[in-house]
Amino acid sequence: MAGSTFGNIFKITTWGESHGKALGVVVDGCPAGIEISEEDIQSFLNRRKPGQSSFTTQRNEDDKVEILSGVFEGKTTGTPISLLVFNKDHHSADYSQIANCYRPGHADYTFDQKYGFRDYRGGGRSSGRETIGRVAAGAIASKILDQLGVKILAYSQEIAGIGIDYAKFDAEEILKNPMYMPDANAAEMVSEKAKEKMSEMDSIGGIIECKVAGMPAGVGDPVFDKLDANLAKAMMSIGAVKGVEIGDGFAVAKSFGSTDNDGFEMKDGEIVKTSNHAGGILGGMSDGSEITLRAAIKPTPSIAQTQKTVNKNGENIEIKIKGRHDPIIVPRAVVVVESMVAVTLVDALFTNMTSRMDKIKAFYQ
Amino acid sequence: MAGSTFGNIFKITTWGESHGKALGVVVDGCPAGIEISEEDIQSFLNRRKPGQSSFTTQRNEDDKVEILSGVFEGKTTGTPISLLVFNKDHHSADYSQIANCYRPGHADYTFDQKYGFRDYRGGGRSSGRETIGRVAAGAIASKILDQLGVKILAYSQEIAGIGIDYAKFDAEEILKNPMYMPDANAAEMVSEKAKEKMSEMDSIGGIIECKVAGMPAGVGDPVFDKLDANLAKAMMSIGAVKGVEIGDGFAVAKSFGSTDNDGFEMKDGEIVKTSNHAGGILGGMSDGSEITLRAAIKPTPSIAQTQKTVNKNGENIEIKIKGRHDPIIVPRAVVVVESMVAVTLVDALFTNMTSRMDKIKAFYQ
Amino acid sequence: MAGSTFGNIFKITTWGESHGKALGVVVDGCPAGIEISEEDIQSFLNRRKPGQSSFTTQRNEDDKVEILSGVFEGKTTGTPISLLVFNKDHHSADYSQIANCYRPGHADYTFDQKYGFRDYRGGGRSSGRETIGRVAAGAIASKILDQLGVKILAYSQEIAGIGIDYAKFDAEEILKNPMYMPDANAAEMVSEKAKEKMSEMDSIGGIIECKVAGMPAGVGDPVFDKLDANLAKAMMSIGAVKGVEIGDGFAVAKSFGSTDNDGFEMKDGEIVKTSNHAGGILGGMSDGSEITLRAAIKPTPSIAQTQKTVNKNGENIEIKIKGRHDPIIVPRAVVVVESMVAVTLVDALFTNMTSRMDKIKAFYQ
Amino acid sequence: MAGSTFGNIFKITTWGESHGKALGVVVDGCPAGIEISEEDIQSFLNRRKPGQSSFTTQRNEDDKVEILSGVFEGKTTGTPISLLVFNKDHHSADYSQIANCYRPGHADYTFDQKYGFRDYRGGGRSSGRETIGRVAAGAIASKILDQLGVKILAYSQEIAGIGIDYAKFDAEEILKNPMYMPDANAAEMVSEKAKEKMSEMDSIGGIIECKVAGMPAGVGDPVFDKLDANLAKAMMSIGAVKGVEIGDGFAVAKSFGSTDNDGFEMKDGEIVKTSNHAGGILGGMSDGSEITLRAAIKPTPSIAQTQKTVNKNGENIEIKIKGRHDPIIVPRAVVVVESMVAVTLVDALFTNMTSRMDKIKAFYQ
Repeated sequence: MAGSTFGNIFKITTWGESHGKALGVVVDGCPAGIEISEEDIQSFLNRRKPGQSSFTTQRNEDDKVEILSGVFEGKTTGTPISLLVFNKDHHSADYSQIANCYRPGHADYTFDQKYGFRDYRGGGRSSGRETIGRVAAGAIASKILDQLGVKILAYSQEIAGIGIDYAKFDAEEILKNPMYMPDANAAEMVSEKAKEKMSEMDSIGGIIECKVAGMPAGVGDPVFDKLDANLAKAMMSIGAVKGVEIGDGFAVAKSFGSTDNDGFEMKDGEIVKTSNHAGGILGGMSDGSEITLRAAIKPTPSIAQTQKTVNKNGENIEIKIKGRHDPIIVPRAVVVVESMVAVTLVDALFTNMTSRMDKIKAFYQ
Repeated sequence: MAGSTFGNIFKITTWGESHGKALGVVVDGCPAGIEISEEDIQSFLNRRKPGQSSFTTQRNEDDKVEILSGVFEGKTTGTPISLLVFNKDHHSADYSQIANCYRPGHADYTFDQKYGFRDYRGGGRSSGRETIGRVAAGAIASKILDQLGVKILAYSQEIAGIGIDYAKFDAEEILKNPMYMPDANAAEMVSEKAKEKMSEMDSIGGIIECKVAGMPAGVGDPVFDKLDANLAKAMMSIGAVKGVEIGDGFAVAKSFGSTDNDGFEMKDGEIVKTSNHAGGILGGMSDGSEITLRAAIKPTPSIAQTQKTVNKNGENIEIKIKGRHDPIIVPRAVVVVESMVAVTLVDALFTNMTSRMDKIKAFYQ
Repeated sequence: MAGSTFGNIFKITTWGESHGKALGVVVDGCPAGIEISEEDIQSFLNRRKPGQSSFTTQRNEDDKVEILSGVFEGKTTGTPISLLVFNKDHHSADYSQIANCYRPGHADYTFDQKYGFRDYRGGGRSSGRETIGRVAAGAIASKILDQLGVKILAYSQEIAGIGIDYAKFDAEEILKNPMYMPDANAAEMVSEKAKEKMSEMDSIGGIIECKVAGMPAGVGDPVFDKLDANLAKAMMSIGAVKGVEIGDGFAVAKSFGSTDNDGFEMKDGEIVKTSNHAGGILGGMSDGSEITLRAAIKPTPSIAQTQKTVNKNGENIEIKIKGRHDPIIVPRAVVVVESMVAVTLVDALFTNMTSRMDKIKAFYQ
Repeated sequence: MAGSTFGNIFKITTWGESHGKALGVVVDGCPAGIEISEEDIQSFLNRRKPGQSSFTTQRNEDDKVEILSGVFEGKTTGTPISLLVFNKDHHSADYSQIANCYRPGHADYTFDQKYGFRDYRGGGRSSGRETIGRVAAGAIASKILDQLGVKILAYSQEIAGIGIDYAKFDAEEILKNPMYMPDANAAEMVSEKAKEKMSEMDSIGGIIECKVAGMPAGVGDPVFDKLDANLAKAMMSIGAVKGVEIGDGFAVAKSFGSTDNDGFEMKDGEIVKTSNHAGGILGGMSDGSEITLRAAIKPTPSIAQTQKTVNKNGENIEIKIKGRHDPIIVPRAVVVVESMVAVTLVDALFTNMTSRMDKIKAFYQ
């Protein structure tokens, strides 16, 4: 497998399995001179850490990050930054159940088909723990975006069919409830629903929304490396994501040109759009307005209900997935979405620096 | 702008503007020994050619393709295949209207922001004509898939809110109606709706669906280069696409683990899935069942209604977009979707060949 | 074959065979706003055109370049630039001699081994004509370097063992003699030697040297993408090159630290080196002094003498290569070396723009 | 800095500084099913470990490697392999001398020019310790080559002007003398010379030669990704390498077509070459004969003699480099050359698998 690297100029390479010794990421192409500490990265990782509410796996992990290279005297040096988290709670489980069978909704079968065998301990490379590397890299990307005035806000927009009320949108609320919703009331309703489904040994899905403010206009490329194309890849590369929308998304299919087009007007001497159906991206390039995207997350496939499947001997069997599993993966995936968006935007901003000869000339003078 | 290349091993690089001398593509990494003719490629291009029905632009183009390299005595040689289409009808238009203003829903503004100026003739690089290169490359990719037993079927699933009736699904029908729908009745209703909207000087959008049969299991990579992630990028890189779904797509957000999980069972000695909510991809790798995806296409932004916008001098103005524009872009985009899927699958199949040492060893013996 | 693309940000993709319809290049990642004309590119191509002296092939080609995309109103638009040269004199030859045998020193055998068959007309993709695309791209890269104050000078340093006398070095002389040597006297001696070898139906090799002035310090990367590593690849990717040196090259093997190290000193308030054994690159990054490199070119393999080889039927045979072949390839390769150096430097200069956060911040303010 | 990744399909990404916490490499794209242990990798690392003879730095490092991911039950899983070596002896030194001055022959000045500041401890990222990652990856690549019947042999061919006598060539001898020479006598003479130069507080350079047997014909690409081009980049990316030769290398410049061309003949029913001036590569593709290459290594720049340079305040100063430095870097670089060749060959072998449609079809049947 190649395919563990994302980005062209700002490049991240993740590695590690759910129950291996450690997981991590190498961030290559990070500019020199950015102040970064293990605390900066830890604060991102803590948002995806297990065991934070009754709705997440009770696996006991500190997920304590170590910076092994690329930072000197508190600042990035321009050389690759190696970040690592040792797995702590990785010997306890009994994998005999999943070692020989193909769990529905999981990658067990496809791994065996591709590689001939697999590290069957807790999902191996397809575990949600793989996102540790993404989030650690996202923390660094966010540091860069901060300095360029770009702000990302991600949250659960809908879980188990219960959506937020935009009239009550409160960004401060997001980190205060276990659902990472900007609407306390919706979060409360989701919690009730979640408890109900947990008692039924079932799991639920949802939608994560992400908004980006402060992105300069003209970033992204017009053909294959459209900003939205790279964001779509970034989103769909997150396990459990099955759909991606930019701006109005699938609603455009039922829309008309007269209503979908965003007009332009002059406001305080600046060109602004009069609406934002496009979600801040036109022709693959940012248009200066807010970038909006959504990702649909499927229900956690690990459920304790009886499911029909087959084992490696080609026998029809029934299984109940035991162990510590999140009944909802959506809240913990919020910071993963935010991180992948951050990494994608930084790469696009860097790529964009060579689009005009006059600016290149000015740079080198 | 880098960003005109797609694929890692099977690599396509498109070039050309709407009203430049020519448009084309270089296909690098195509294996030797594939029989290919200009007719093979032409038959793909004809499906996206303008002027085929009253619902498409009346621009007069033959879009006749020439193979300039990489094919010898009727077979690919393994060296890059250069394909070119000369623009014929490219001097007639008067661009003074769009040269100085920013059309709503188009990339005029973002091009100017990125590059400082733009080729304003007919959309330049952001024109739908850029897809000529993609479709020409798609014709070659499809030849490869044919030999490997992989079949792609794409069609309009819904236009202007009118969806196909799967009970009446008839693949033979797709190329027979101007809407490229597998349901003659739905196509008829869409035509009525389209005429109505054209009379209102408006445009409509829709959804393209694509199904892939015969894909071997285990193709795709588990992390960033997930098969669905690369398909999502491929789809979103097509101008006017604002949303992408794999399998059940956004519906998973309201689903439960107990209903969304696809079970496995033995059938005639083979492992098969008992349902296909996942759309044929698990953990980023094909699972041997049908791959299904959908792309949402926005209404054509060029409409003859009066729209508010600004010009390059920063003045608020009103414009009516004249000229030859498709009121619906969906039908002509069907072959573009099919082509991008083909290119993505070929690259994934090639990448997959080095996943197991035993198979590599067998290859070199 | 992938492998027809060179560069990461400033990317060139060449295509075309010796006796196909045309040859060309797509230059992707070229910034917008550079004035470029077909004449600019033609002047580069003319330096590698056949038939310019009695020492080069008498094949009759104008090698007239056409710009097909990416340039609008005389300036680059930032979109891919497609450049094409139609082959004119490509139907005349009789290839029956080489179609079935493996010419010594050529790629006939390796092509057949890799691809199963080959375009045997005049060397196909391995022909020197492939460099048309490189040189056309090099003309554009040189335009960029001009604007950044970087100047490249390439010339034949030695042919058939006859080297230039640096005491008589005259840059003006290079384009005046058929050997592209900066020393008229050496060029004269080489011409005599070349005539002698031609009469013996033999061919000769030589060394091309290249010097780069005005390169800012700090360009290039410290590990795999060292500036010298990418230059070495660029040089060795030219057919017939068998050795590459940076600075003192192989002479360092016999040198000592005390003599090989270049000291630093202050001069007019600037840090300068007191010598330049390193050839302007330290640790993979330019050090602000002149970059110097050399490439060794093997004698043209096509010779009219009788040679022993085998045919595709596995029979030992003798052949004499007929046709129009350069007895010396070195002079025509000078502009190829210059072009590949130009492309490599532009890519390194562009990559370098994201090495420091303070400069990125300044760029976006 | 991007630029810490090498390879396209078999991809290695190194990270780490001389005196940071650790150094390592992520190997992505390694096939599943290869038996690999920490011992396998350790045996490679031990060949570059410091302190093995009086001619190498006395820095005290075990360089004990840990496999953190990608290996399960003793076999590679196909997922990225993360390898790490903790720095042990990294707190002892006093860096005040080099923190503020630019050592001749080192990358201190270019690092500061590129990044604005640098990790000045022991060379930071430009330290020879960066090669730990390369060698660890090389151990894995060599495992793959073993299974494909490809054997690499590297050794010191010449040090301080003293070359090996090919008549006495003894491969067994290489690992027995501190010079890694296949000629005990030459090694003895070099040792004498080295002692002499060490007493003069000076350092010496040399040439490493590498031969590859068993490479199938047709591997490598005909244009930019020529096998020799990628090998040249691999060699020149090693710190201290200033020249690279394939086959006869620079000697071809004085050669003639009649003597440089390698003839073909039938031998036991197989096509073989009658000589090997080309060094096993024709037109960028392996020709089935032995691949030969050479890299010139400059003398260690760290010498205890007084040298003139400048400090960061722009003052002319004199320095004597103290500390534990190798007077000859050549012997320890032998395994680095071997490793980079191994990594390059594996990537080329993998890339080659998609060159023919008939073989792809057979693979998928």
